[in-house]
Parts: sequence; C-alpha cells; structure tokens
Amino acid sequence: MGLLTLILPRLTPAKQNGYNQHLSKIAVCELGTMMEHNLPHTIALLTRTPTALDALLRDLPEAWTFRNEGENTWSAFDVVGHLIHGERTDWMPRARMVLQFGETKAFEPFDRWGQERESQGKSLAQLLDEFARLRSENLGELRALNLRQEDLELRGRHPVLGVVTLSELLATWAAHDLTHLHQISRVMAHQYREAVGPWNAYLGVLQCAGHSSP
Amino acid sequence: MGLLTLILPRLTPAKQNGYNQHLSKIAVCELGTMMEHNLPHTIALLTRTPTALDALLRDLPEAWTFRNEGENTWSAFDVVGHLIHGERTDWMPRARMVLQFGETKAFEPFDRWGQERESQGKSLAQLLDEFARLRSENLGELRALNLRQEDLELRGRHPVLGVVTLSELLATWAAHDLTHLHQISRVMAHQYREAVGPWNAYLGVLQCAGHSSP
Repeated sequence: MGLLTLILPRLTPAKQNGYNQHLSKIAVCELGTMMEHNLPHTIALLTRTPTALDALLRDLPEAWTFRNEGENTWSAFDVVGHLIHGERTDWMPRARMVLQFGETKAFEPFDRWGQERESQGKSLAQLLDEFARLRSENLGELRALNLRQEDLELRGRHPVLGVVTLSELLATWAAHDLTHLHQISRVMAHQYREAVGPWNAYLGVLQCAGHSSP
Repeated sequence: MGLLTLILPRLTPAKQNGYNQHLSKIAVCELGTMMEHNLPHTIALLTRTPTALDALLRDLPEAWTFRNEGENTWSAFDVVGHLIHGERTDWMPRARMVLQFGETKAFEPFDRWGQERESQGKSLAQLLDEFARLRSENLGELRALNLRQEDLELRGRHPVLGVVTLSELLATWAAHDLTHLHQISRVMAHQYREAVGPWNAYLGVLQCAGHSSP
C-alpha cells in the first residue's frame, strides 16, 4: 500500500474517496492472504467436529436425520457415513502417501459414495461413535508425526487436481468438515421449507441450492 | 396419483417413462407436503443447538471464531450474539403476542444488528453460556404452554410478512438455528479459502455466497 499512500495526497477528495474504497479492498485481500494454514488451528477444529455432530444429531427424531433433499442427495445419516469413509480412506492415508512417495505416486481416487458400505445396517448412534473413534485415532497419528513447517510444504499428487501440498491436504480436511456441517444444516432446514410459511424468504439456508461439484 | 395410474397403461413405453419421471416428482412433492411442522421435533432441535455450538466453538482459536467474511458480515461470535438477541426479543415474545393479541397487534420488528448490545465486552464462552441459559428458559416456557394442535393454527401479525401462524413461527425458530449453523460453517470455511489450494473447487461451502435477505 506504500505506493497508494504516496499517490493519495495528490488527488481531489472525490478521487481520494474512490481510492480509499479501493484501498480498503486491498486491505481485505491482504487480510485474506494472512489466513494461511495453521496446523494447531486445523487440529483444534478437527477435534471438535465429532462432538459437535454428536450434540446436534444423536437421538434427534429420524424426520431430521434420515430425510434428504430428493433423489441422489444425502441425509445427515449419509453425511456421517461419508465422514467415516474419509477417515478410513482419504485424509491420513493421503498424508502418509505424501510423506512416503511425494509426487511420484497419485492418491487413490476417493469414492464419494463409499459411505453406503460404512453405513449399512448401522444406527446413527453407531456411526457417530465410529466417526469419533476414527477421528481420534487419526489425530493421534497426525500429532505423532510432529510435522514441521517444512514438512507442510511437501508435495503429493492428486489424481485429478495434480500437485498439492501436505499443508493444503490438511487444511482441506478441516474445511471438508465445515462443508458437511454446512450441508447437514441445509438438508435439515429443507425439511421445514413449507412449515416456516412466509418466513422462507428470510432464511438464507433455504436459498442455498447446494454447491458440491459432481 | 390415481388418475396417472389409470392413464399410464395406455401410453407407449417411452411416454410411460416420461410419466414415471413426472410421477416420481409428484411423489417427492407429496413427501414434501408430509413434512409439516411437528412441535416435538422442533423442540428436539431447539434443545440441541446450544450444545452443538458449544461443542464446535468453545475454546476454538479466535482465528476461527472472530473473523468474518468481510465488511458488514458476521463472525461466529457475532452469530451467537444474534441468537441470544433472538431468544430475548423474537421467538417466545412473539409467541406470547400471538396468544394474547392474535392478528390485532403486529410483532415488534426484530433488530438484526441487536447482537452488538448483547455481545459488548463479553467473551465467546460467556455468550455460549448465556445462549444455553436463555434457550433452556424459553423452552421451559414453551413446554409449559402445553400447546394443542388447534393452538398452533392461531394467527399473529408480522410487521412485514403479514398474517402468520404460531406453527410457522415455531418452525422458523428451529430453521433459524439451522440457517445460522449453515452461516457459521460457511464463515469459518472462508478462513481457509486460500489454504486449501486447488481443493477449493471441490468444497461446496466455498461456493456459497450467503443468501440471507437484507
């Protein structure tokens, strides 16, 4: 922003105002770039997700947890199964692959419908227990790696996205929890789409059409 | 669906297929209309929200809970303040107005920025405690009303939306929790928008532009 600070005093007040607005956008961007990956922050979030989902979903009437948004969409129950499948096959297995093979070997593609195997014949309470157990084991393993900043820059190979860093993989693990918390709240709110009557115009979650890529 | 069952056998297979698709849409709609407001389901959800938010947010690093999505947007901390403000001024006060005045007196407009007063000088932990306490008190009061089905059809007057039912008000209370859980997960995920690197294309929550009406 040094350059703009030099330019600003030479402008008319109106133009200064325009530049100030521009400047505040730059400030937002700079704030944006400051939010880089922080491993302790990632672990803090990953630790809390199973407890938060448990508090939200356990023993909730099935009308909330087993209904979805229509054909080929997921219920809260399905999402917990998907999170379990990720704990088994996605995050720590891929982190190990980065450490072991670097860019030389691509990750196994993730099966986005793999939760059907995980969920079959199980209750939501069982899935919540299993998710908590697997997450706890995986975080134990992650902590035991004692990753240093330079380790986070190590690169692996995603089968579609190409080269990715260990840092990006671990940040995505946390953001993936949030994308599914976002989804669960939307799927559940959908069940009351008609019940809320004219308030549906005010409820942002009911305007969300879902955004996950196919 | 009786009429379509009569029509279908007279059609060619291709047209039958088209009608079957139409039929499955009707089935979805019918399922939709079945999801009417259920007071015990509403209470079950309203009971869980404070515990779920507590599990997610308490003692989480402030980089997650105090950052927002840019100017004039809310952080998770702001959202909890807003939920507190709703407990004090929105849901049960409006329910009491329906019972007392019916359509003759409009609700007080809700102050969507009222959380600033609620939050000032408080920690997130204090807000979480306060939200849990107020919610518990309000649900105690709601249960004590022993509302019957016919009570839920009672009408009140919203200052903008016009005539609304008690049923719609209470369903909205629950859906409002979900809209803010949806928002919190989006605001938090936004903090890792850059950290996830190329995975941002896969994370639905990062495609959500926010949808709340102004």
